[in-house]
Order: sequence, then structure tokens, then C-alpha cells
Amino acid sequence: MEKLKFIAFDADDTLWINEPYYRETEKAFCEMLKDYMPCDEAAKQLLNTEVGNIPLYGYGGKSFILSKIETIIKITNGKASMDFIQRAIDLGKELLSKPVIVLDGVEDVLKELSQKYKLILATKGDLLDQQRKLTESGLQKYFFQVEVMSDKKVADYSKILNKLDCKSEELLMIGNSIKSDILPLLELGAKAIHIPFHTTWAHEEVDTIIENDRFTELESIIDILNLIN
Amino acid sequence: MEKLKFIAFDADDTLWINEPYYRETEKAFCEMLKDYMPCDEAAKQLLNTEVGNIPLYGYGGKSFILSKIETIIKITNGKASMDFIQRAIDLGKELLSKPVIVLDGVEDVLKELSQKYKLILATKGDLLDQQRKLTESGLQKYFFQVEVMSDKKVADYSKILNKLDCKSEELLMIGNSIKSDILPLLELGAKAIHIPFHTTWAHEEVDTIIENDRFTELESIIDILNLIN
Repeated sequence: MEKLKFIAFDADDTLWINEPYYRETEKAFCEMLKDYMPCDEAAKQLLNTEVGNIPLYGYGGKSFILSKIETIIKITNGKASMDFIQRAIDLGKELLSKPVIVLDGVEDVLKELSQKYKLILATKGDLLDQQRKLTESGLQKYFFQVEVMSDKKVADYSKILNKLDCKSEELLMIGNSIKSDILPLLELGAKAIHIPFHTTWAHEEVDTIIENDRFTELESIIDILNLIN
Repeated sequence: MEKLKFIAFDADDTLWINEPYYRETEKAFCEMLKDYMPCDEAAKQLLNTEVGNIPLYGYGGKSFILSKIETIIKITNGKASMDFIQRAIDLGKELLSKPVIVLDGVEDVLKELSQKYKLILATKGDLLDQQRKLTESGLQKYFFQVEVMSDKKVADYSKILNKLDCKSEELLMIGNSIKSDILPLLELGAKAIHIPFHTTWAHEEVDTIIENDRFTELESIIDILNLIN
């Protein structure tokens, strides 16, 4: 790709498995509350609480635990046993200790592209947890810069472009979330590649058909090498 | 100061008030538990839980709320009413919404020094909360770069030096915590100025006498201008 200098990668579910761990935790959580509410309704309540808390808590594992605790109080009308709260904390701590499983082809792609381009990790979530995952993944060495972002809106990416002294047409972003990794970048004038992952958080789902010559969708991350190397 | 290029500032209790809000929250928390345990013992239990959770949760407001909830379960042996948990969440949310009060002299110092040096904000805590405080403080415009760190150990500062392409003798750090803002910097070969704040978190307290010609202690941030302008 002409003019390209920087390639930014989303982390969770683009480089390594994340969302399935969250869904697994959510399932255990809803299961615990099944005497109070059917599972799918409890999941909806949890999502509502999470989304409502984003402005104050932001994204990531700790926000997830706090929203689970709040949801227990709401759903049980404050009548649940304290074991439920302890279980929510335990589930959260397990989530923050899950092994980091790098997705197929990721390391080959990073290794190859890091020789020609400056690679940026652009992820949102808990600062410490994202750093832990990066360290455990063994992928840190391929990145020129790591940006743990509090959100992934146009203004957030714009700050990164400024920081890197990078024009939007010099940047390509690769990720699994149309809402967070693709649309803001296309709006800024950058290129974007979408690599869908089989599981997506409901809050990240959008229903859009993208027609833009700076946008590509690929089935697997390894296909990037045919496209831009 | 000769060779100086970058001046890094700690944020909480160096630029704006923070710790008094945490202590106020802690007081309300311990008060709530007074039928189970004397206040000073509850505070000790909370501190133990917080410190134990740092490797998994890191620093900041959300970690504080989660540790409070865990402490309630421990202290009451799981027998507390769910109102206690709700109160801990409410206290936490209040804490994350406290007004940002910039300390006396800070803006004058930043304004003056930003004309000659590149200023770095080097803070640890919740990513979103630190960004909120910086935005509300109105001080963002004076900083060349903002680093929200997951910890403030030698290795963490070392990464920032690399990122800035800055030699340690070109850096001065200013902060209120001997443990987090001074000792790691002196170890790296940088300069450090300590400005004590009247309230310090027990986990940040150290009992050291520093003898190092790269170290200075000042009573007020405004005194920096006599020293290095």
C-alpha cells in the first residue's frame, strides 16, 4: 500500500483470544442467578449495567466485575447471599488470570510487517491487564509503540496520529470490531482492515455495510501478507 | 539545571488533590463497619486487601472499590447486608466523580517551565480516571506527553526514557511520593524533587533519608521556579 508508514493492531480477539473468556464468565454468572431470572435476561441486565458504567469505569476486567456485583444487587433486589458477590469477585479474578492464546498466523504477520512498517498496538481496557497480556503473548518486541486507550473514538485515534506525527493516509488499522477498529479510522481518512472474530461483545456490534475503497475485509490475519507485503 | 530537557510531574497530590478524597471515602467505609470492627483495624484490613490485589488489579479507583467489597465480606464473615456492598459501590462512584482541585502555584509553574522544557505527566492509576482529572484540571495543554503507568518502578520509568529518547541525566521528576516519584528516578541517574503533601497513602510511605546531589526537597511547587528557571 502506497504511503503506508504505520500499521496499528487491535489486541483482544485480533492478536489473542479474549471475548470467549468474557462470555464464559458471563455464562457462569447468569447460571448463578437462574433462580431469580432466566439466563438471557440476566445477560441483558448485565450488559445494561456495563454500558451505563462505561462513562465512569471505562472498559476492561475490573469494570466487568464491578458491573456484575451491581447487577447481582439489582436482580436479587438486595436479597442474594454474600456468596454471590464473592463468586462474582472470584470469577473476575479468574478472568484476569486467563492464559494468553495468540491467534494463528499472528506472529508470522507481525514479524514480517515489523521489518517494513512501524507497528502500533492500539487496545482499550484495563491498563495493567492489557500490559500483562502483551507480556505473556511474547509479541511486545514487534511493536514500535503500545497505546492502551480509554476509548476508541475518532478523537482518541486522532490523538495517537498527532503523537506519532503521522498523517491519516499513512496509517492502516487492523481489528475485529467494526465499531471500534474500523469506522473511526475510515472517518479520519486512514485505511482499515476488518478481520471478524467468531465472538463479539454485544456492545461492539453494529449493523453497517461499508463501502469505502480504504476498507478491506479479510477472513484470516495471514491474508494481510498477500495484500500489503 | 544543566542538560535538562524533560521535566516529569506526578499528578495526584502533586498537581491536584487526591489522597484526602481517598481517606474521606475510607473513613466513611470504616464507619459503616464499626459494629464489626474498630475503625483503625478495618482500615488496616482494607489496606492489606488493596496491597494483596495490586498484582492483579493495579492502582486506582476501581481497584479501591473492589478491595472495599472484598474487605466487607472478610470483616463481616459474609454476614453483612447487601446494603453495605451497595454503599461501597456508591462511595466508589462518588470518589470517581470528585471535583479536580489544582494545587496552589501549579499552573504558574507549568506555564513557565513548558516554555523551556518538554513536560511529561507521569501518573499511575485508572486510565480513564486520570484522563478525566487531567481534562478537568485544564492543565493538559502544558504537557508534551502523558503517561498513565500501571506502576512506578525503575523498569516503568526506564521504558518512558526509551520512548522519549531521553538520557537519564536529561530528566527531572517532581512528585510527592518518595517511593514512586523519587527513589526509582535517582536509581536511574535522573534528578528528582520531592514536594511533600500533607496526606500520603500508607502503601506509599517509606522511611528513608536520601543523600544524593541529584535530589532536592521543596516545601511548595512554586519554589521550583527559583531553582531551575
